[in-house]
Amino acid sequence: MSAPVVDFWFDFASTYSYPSAMRIRALADAAGVQVRFRPFLLGVIFKAQGWDTSPFNLYPAKGRNMWRDVERLCADLSLPFVRPEPFPQNSLLAARTALAIGETERADFSRAMFRAEFAEGRRIDDPAVVGSVVASLKADAAATLAAAQTNEVKDKLRAETVQAQQLGIFGAPSFVTADGELFWGNDRLERALAWAKRTAASLR
Amino acid sequence: MSAPVVDFWFDFASTYSYPSAMRIRALADAAGVQVRFRPFLLGVIFKAQGWDTSPFNLYPAKGRNMWRDVERLCADLSLPFVRPEPFPQNSLLAARTALAIGETERADFSRAMFRAEFAEGRRIDDPAVVGSVVASLKADAAATLAAAQTNEVKDKLRAETVQAQQLGIFGAPSFVTADGELFWGNDRLERALAWAKRTAASLR
Repeated sequence: MSAPVVDFWFDFASTYSYPSAMRIRALADAAGVQVRFRPFLLGVIFKAQGWDTSPFNLYPAKGRNMWRDVERLCADLSLPFVRPEPFPQNSLLAARTALAIGETERADFSRAMFRAEFAEGRRIDDPAVVGSVVASLKADAAATLAAAQTNEVKDKLRAETVQAQQLGIFGAPSFVTADGELFWGNDRLERALAWAKRTAASLR
Repeated sequence: MSAPVVDFWFDFASTYSYPSAMRIRALADAAGVQVRFRPFLLGVIFKAQGWDTSPFNLYPAKGRNMWRDVERLCADLSLPFVRPEPFPQNSLLAARTALAIGETERADFSRAMFRAEFAEGRRIDDPAVVGSVVASLKADAAATLAAAQTNEVKDKLRAETVQAQQLGIFGAPSFVTADGELFWGNDRLERALAWAKRTAASLR
């Protein structure tokens, strides 16, 4: 039988998606779980429930705690962290590019994108930034950015976001196992992997 | 020097406060941290930001995930869990009674109250239920319920809720260390205790 799988649903603008993107490979390898990187647009889901920006902006006490909490988390993980300006970043181009670049390089691209944003404070809506991240993976920046603007990729990102919503996703990161179990939040990553492993074992 | 202290801020209606109340003693003992049980009224803070009920009711996808998540958490902890009806319960009487009963018995009362609500499905706004919980601790139920209705206790609960808000608390459970560091959520309990321990050690 094939390895258990967890879908890692994230938005490039999402603060807690950053530590998850950085942690997931080692944890998944240790658990024998395969991970699929699934970028989507959380802003679309927020809009559907009446929010025109991040709840961290709408609710200041919640926002203050999030910045401090992510700072503490990253310090514990020895991950550099700078606060993106503006927040949230527009993640449309990064998400499209992640889909355009293909499955093989999607995880590496995503991690490099998160580093550019949260470790280096670069703007992820800038084609020059996204292009330089693509180029750092030895891929063709111009061709990939062009592919990101095709209708095929635009439609694919729309469909991914619709699927996220249909899965019950309302925040990022979220982790979904093959049996449809949804885990929300960076702090649920380990549980999601354990669930996927247990379920796969019980089906054997 | 005295032991490091963590204030455990909770609302009796809060689902995630239940596993925290049940976990905190053993974890705090192991870390050598003293815990103060601080009930407050989260509904007052929600109202101040424009919500007239729990965000778990206002945002259905978030609510569905919470119920499933708490169910999974409690299963892992071997804690019984039933969904309170209605949700959220009115926690005013339970919070006042916790303050009336005095510091020595507050933690035991709080745990017994959470068990009545989330393990046994009893209504925590019913004086008979609250009275039976008080009596189970060998305290005087009638005298304690009468004390819970005094202006002194009412004012104390108001002041506690104001203090919670001033500390930046926007959800429950929350954990605050002596140096004012705020940790939100059951999943941050271990981090709050570690922070308190580390800070106390560095001050020695």
